[in-house]
Amino acid sequence: MTDFTETQSSWLSAEDMETARGRLPIVYVNAVPVRTDEAGVVTHVGLLLRIGPDGAANREIVAGRVLYGERVRDALLRHLEKDLGPLALPRIPSSPQPFTVIEYFPNPDISGFYDPRQHAVGLGYVVPVEGDCEPSQDALDLVWLSPDEVVSPTVAAELSPGHEKVVRRALAHTGCLP
Amino acid sequence: MTDFTETQSSWLSAEDMETARGRLPIVYVNAVPVRTDEAGVVTHVGLLLRIGPDGAANREIVAGRVLYGERVRDALLRHLEKDLGPLALPRIPSSPQPFTVIEYFPNPDISGFYDPRQHAVGLGYVVPVEGDCEPSQDALDLVWLSPDEVVSPTVAAELSPGHEKVVRRALAHTGCLP
Amino acid sequence: MTDFTETQSSWLSAEDMETARGRLPIVYVNAVPVRTDEAGVVTHVGLLLRIGPDGAANREIVAGRVLYGERVRDALLRHLEKDLGPLALPRIPSSPQPFTVIEYFPNPDISGFYDPRQHAVGLGYVVPVEGDCEPSQDALDLVWLSPDEVVSPTVAAELSPGHEKVVRRALAHTGCLP
Amino acid sequence: MTDFTETQSSWLSAEDMETARGRLPIVYVNAVPVRTDEAGVVTHVGLLLRIGPDGAANREIVAGRVLYGERVRDALLRHLEKDLGPLALPRIPSSPQPFTVIEYFPNPDISGFYDPRQHAVGLGYVVPVEGDCEPSQDALDLVWLSPDEVVSPTVAAELSPGHEKVVRRALAHTGCLP
Repeated sequence: MTDFTETQSSWLSAEDMETARGRLPIVYVNAVPVRTDEAGVVTHVGLLLRIGPDGAANREIVAGRVLYGERVRDALLRHLEKDLGPLALPRIPSSPQPFTVIEYFPNPDISGFYDPRQHAVGLGYVVPVEGDCEPSQDALDLVWLSPDEVVSPTVAAELSPGHEKVVRRALAHTGCLP
Repeated sequence: MTDFTETQSSWLSAEDMETARGRLPIVYVNAVPVRTDEAGVVTHVGLLLRIGPDGAANREIVAGRVLYGERVRDALLRHLEKDLGPLALPRIPSSPQPFTVIEYFPNPDISGFYDPRQHAVGLGYVVPVEGDCEPSQDALDLVWLSPDEVVSPTVAAELSPGHEKVVRRALAHTGCLP
Repeated sequence: MTDFTETQSSWLSAEDMETARGRLPIVYVNAVPVRTDEAGVVTHVGLLLRIGPDGAANREIVAGRVLYGERVRDALLRHLEKDLGPLALPRIPSSPQPFTVIEYFPNPDISGFYDPRQHAVGLGYVVPVEGDCEPSQDALDLVWLSPDEVVSPTVAAELSPGHEKVVRRALAHTGCLP
Repeated sequence: MTDFTETQSSWLSAEDMETARGRLPIVYVNAVPVRTDEAGVVTHVGLLLRIGPDGAANREIVAGRVLYGERVRDALLRHLEKDLGPLALPRIPSSPQPFTVIEYFPNPDISGFYDPRQHAVGLGYVVPVEGDCEPSQDALDLVWLSPDEVVSPTVAAELSPGHEKVVRRALAHTGCLP
C-alpha cells in the first residue's frame, strides 16, 4: 500500500509514524474502483500503475490509511479522489459494512497478506466510479479491465500478491469472478 | 407488497398466479430508495404513498415480484423505474448480496412479516437514487424523509408493519438508525 | 440441484411443479458445509458425491428448494440434515443475510449459471458443521477437502460448473480463496 | 470500551499507548454474544455488567483492542474468552466480513459514537456462544436477555449509548429487531 504522502499531512512525524507502525495495527481502506452498467453489473475494474520502491511497475487498487479523526467513508473519498482525480465521482457505499477485511502482516505466514512495514487492517469496499478519471500524483497510468482480463495470468502477475487476492474477492462478491 | 400490474405482464394468468401463490414461495425485491451525500451517508429515505385495497393511505418502499427469466438486478431496476419514474437514475448495487432477506407469510406468527396473499421471500437492497423522481402509476406521492423522521411514531404508523421493519433494518445497515 | 425427494413432500403434484417451474422463479438454498478451527478459519469444505441423471458422478454442495410456508433457515436445516445425516449439527447462521445470491436460468447466457429445468434463485450460505456426518439418501459419499484441494483442477472439474463457482465465492467470502 | 488489561500485555507502555491514542485510529472488535436456537434464531443477547470509572454500573457488549500482530478473529476469541470465561465456546464467524463498522471519536458530533480517550474503529460481529459462561475479570455479572428485553427502555438506558446502538444494529442484522 502506498501512502507516504499522507504521512506528511497527518499529525505524526515520519519518525513517530515509524514507531507506531511497529506497535499498533494501522487502519486502511482498500477500494476496488469499478465501472458498472445500468443494472449494476461490474463491467470493468480500475487498476493504477505505479513504480514501486524497487523500480518495478506494479498494478494496484486504491489503498491508503484512515487518519486520526477521519471517518472511513471520508478516507475512501479522499483516497479515490487523490488517485483517480477530482472528477472521478466515486459512489461511496451507503453502508459501512465492508465486503471483506484484509489483514497485512510483516510476517507473511499469518494471513498470507504481506506488508513488510506494518500490520495493516484493510477494510475492503467495491466503489463504482462514474466520472472522468485521470491517474494523479505518483500513479503513471490507470487502466480499466474486464473481469476476465483482470484475472488473466498476465495482469494477475502485475498486481501485488495482496491486491490480486483483494480483486478476486471483490469479483466474487459482485458475482463476476470468472 | 403491490404488484398487481406485473401479473398482467408475466406469463401467468391471474388464476394460475393465484394457484401458484398458494403453493410456492414467490421471489420479491424489497428496495429502500435513498438519497446520499457525497460521502455515501444516507440523508433521506424515499417513501411512496398509495391507497390500499381498504381505501386507507399507506406509505411504502419499492417492492415487487421477480419475473420468470429475470435477473434480480433487472427486477430492481424495473420496479424502481416503474415507481419513481424513468428519470430516477437508481444506482443498482454491484453485489447481489442483499442486506437482509424478509420472509412474508400468510400466517403472521412464523416470522412477524405478514402477507395474506402469499409466502414471499423478499431480497432487501438499499438503492441510492440520484435523478428526478416522480411517483408513477398507482402511487399518489413520494416523500423524502430524514432517518429521524422516518422512524418517528407518526411516519412509522403510516408504513405497513412489514415495510416499517424493513426500513429500520436498512437504516441499521447503513449506520444511521437513530 | 437435486430435490426430487421434496417434490413428494410438498403440496404440489409432480405435474403442477413442472408447470410452476416453467413460469416462476423457484427459491433455493445453496449451503456450503465447512469445518472450521477454533478461530473460525475454514479448514475443509464438504462435498457430496452423487450419480447424476446421465450416470456420471458429480460433486455437489447442499442445495434444495424452500417449501411453501417454510423459513429459509428451516430449509437450510432440513437440507443439511437430509444430506449430511441427523448428527451433523449444522450451525445455521444467525443472520438471514446470504453471502451471495445465485441465479440459475434455463438459458445459460443470462447469468452463467445454468439449470435446464427451471429459473432458480439460490440464497448462498456458508454453514459450519460440527457433528458426525454421513452421506444420506441419494449421495454416495461425502468428502472434506481443504480450500487448496477444492479449487484444484481435478476437483473443480468434478463439481457442476454452477456449484464450482458457488464454492469459490464462498471461499472468497471466508477469506480463504487460494 | 474496556481494555486496560490488554495494555499491559501489549508491546506499548501505558504512556506510549496514550500518545498513540491521540494520533492514530485504534482497531477494535465489538462482539455481540448471542444464544441461538437450532435454526440459528437469536433467542438471547449476552450483556456484561461492569462498574465504570465513575462508579456507575453499565451493561456492555464484549469489546477490546486488536493487538499488533494479532488476527481479528484471534482478538475476537481472546476477548470473548476473557470476558465470558474459558468454557464459553464462542463460534467465531467463518467470514471476516463484519456486519457493521462502528467509529468512535473523541468528538461526539462526527459519528454519534463517543469515546473520550480515542478514535476507535470497531469491527462488529455477532458471535453465537454455546458453552457455559461466567463473567470474568472486571465484570460483575453476565445476563442473557431476549431481543425484546434488550431494547426495552430500562435495559437500553443501562447500556452505554454506543453499545446500545451496536446491539440494535446486531438485532437488525439478525432479523430480530422488534
